[in-house]
Amino acid sequence: MLSERQETILQIVKEHSPITGQHIANQLHVTRAALRSDLAILTMLGLVDARPKLGYFFTGNKEKDLLSRAITDISIESCLSQPVIVGEHTSAYDSIIAMFTEDVGTVFVGTDNILAGVVSRKDLLKTAMGNNDLRALPVRMVMTPVSKLIYVEPNEKALVAAQRMIEYEVDCLPVVNVLSTEKEEKKDLQIVGRISKTNITRLFVECGLGRRN
Amino acid sequence: MLSERQETILQIVKEHSPITGQHIANQLHVTRAALRSDLAILTMLGLVDARPKLGYFFTGNKEKDLLSRAITDISIESCLSQPVIVGEHTSAYDSIIAMFTEDVGTVFVGTDNILAGVVSRKDLLKTAMGNNDLRALPVRMVMTPVSKLIYVEPNEKALVAAQRMIEYEVDCLPVVNVLSTEKEEKKDLQIVGRISKTNITRLFVECGLGRRN
Repeated sequence: MLSERQETILQIVKEHSPITGQHIANQLHVTRAALRSDLAILTMLGLVDARPKLGYFFTGNKEKDLLSRAITDISIESCLSQPVIVGEHTSAYDSIIAMFTEDVGTVFVGTDNILAGVVSRKDLLKTAMGNNDLRALPVRMVMTPVSKLIYVEPNEKALVAAQRMIEYEVDCLPVVNVLSTEKEEKKDLQIVGRISKTNITRLFVECGLGRRN
Repeated sequence: MLSERQETILQIVKEHSPITGQHIANQLHVTRAALRSDLAILTMLGLVDARPKLGYFFTGNKEKDLLSRAITDISIESCLSQPVIVGEHTSAYDSIIAMFTEDVGTVFVGTDNILAGVVSRKDLLKTAMGNNDLRALPVRMVMTPVSKLIYVEPNEKALVAAQRMIEYEVDCLPVVNVLSTEKEEKKDLQIVGRISKTNITRLFVECGLGRRN
């Protein structure tokens, strides 16, 4: 997207920062006025930074940053959904009912909002295939326990949540506050919400329509 | 993101286009040189267009367009996944097996790549709950038939696929070519791929990291 001259200026700033506008102009054999718009664009794109009396600095940012910033700024807090939570003694059958009633693909298991595990449609379908008595089977026997769980915190970025869902091949993550407990090695995960591929798909639509930022 | 002066210039161009740089400068009581960087930025953002001898035009683009264009340009073709297809006479049981073996959440039903229906984890979990003999039940009894299906075509945009998945609350869409048949009122849907919320989540990550443009 940068012009050849903008690229050259960027290269000069990279090699000599801080460098004054006059010195850049000297190297290019042009007047300072001729450089003004190029420097304004490079500054606006966040590629160089101008400091009074010192001159221009190379920021290390890349040009594409402007395009991706609309995405990277979104926090999980701003787009999470309400969690659906069942108790640890709930049956697999009732967990499936909760899933259908609330129309979610993942249900959290816990007591007093402290996360004990997560159970997905996939887990429950596998269980249903296994000729189990779903009404007698407690959900904690089929859930992924908290020790093996991937989670995110509310102040992390939606992009991080999306990356973890892709990396760990899950459709939904619990959003939790990590609380210290009296036992030093044990942390409690307090459920504050959930973020799923549906939330990310909605963000993608909002960004595409220019409704975010 | 625009400065107050850039907003003012944009407003002037909007009302008077085409207008020369000199005329804009006159209205603002500044020199043309003082406007140069602001006009360069407005031009680069695609908000105004400069034509030799005529002056500056208002393009009608919105500022956010630049940010969302990276998303709106992505075609379904460029990001679809391979479909998983079972025959119409496959049992519900074997369809679940295909789902686990291929690790997908949605399986297409069809013959010779012509789509007959779609079955999701949710459909199959509901069926498994219903005390059915999954081995004896043909998948066509539980699938969503083609007459009620939402689909997309490969040359449509990923943004459209994302919007449809949100609107119709499905996790995955068949990507099809619509073929004419001998019967005028009937169209065949030839399966070419699938696009899911996982694909969209992956695109979101790629856009956020600046890997798509």
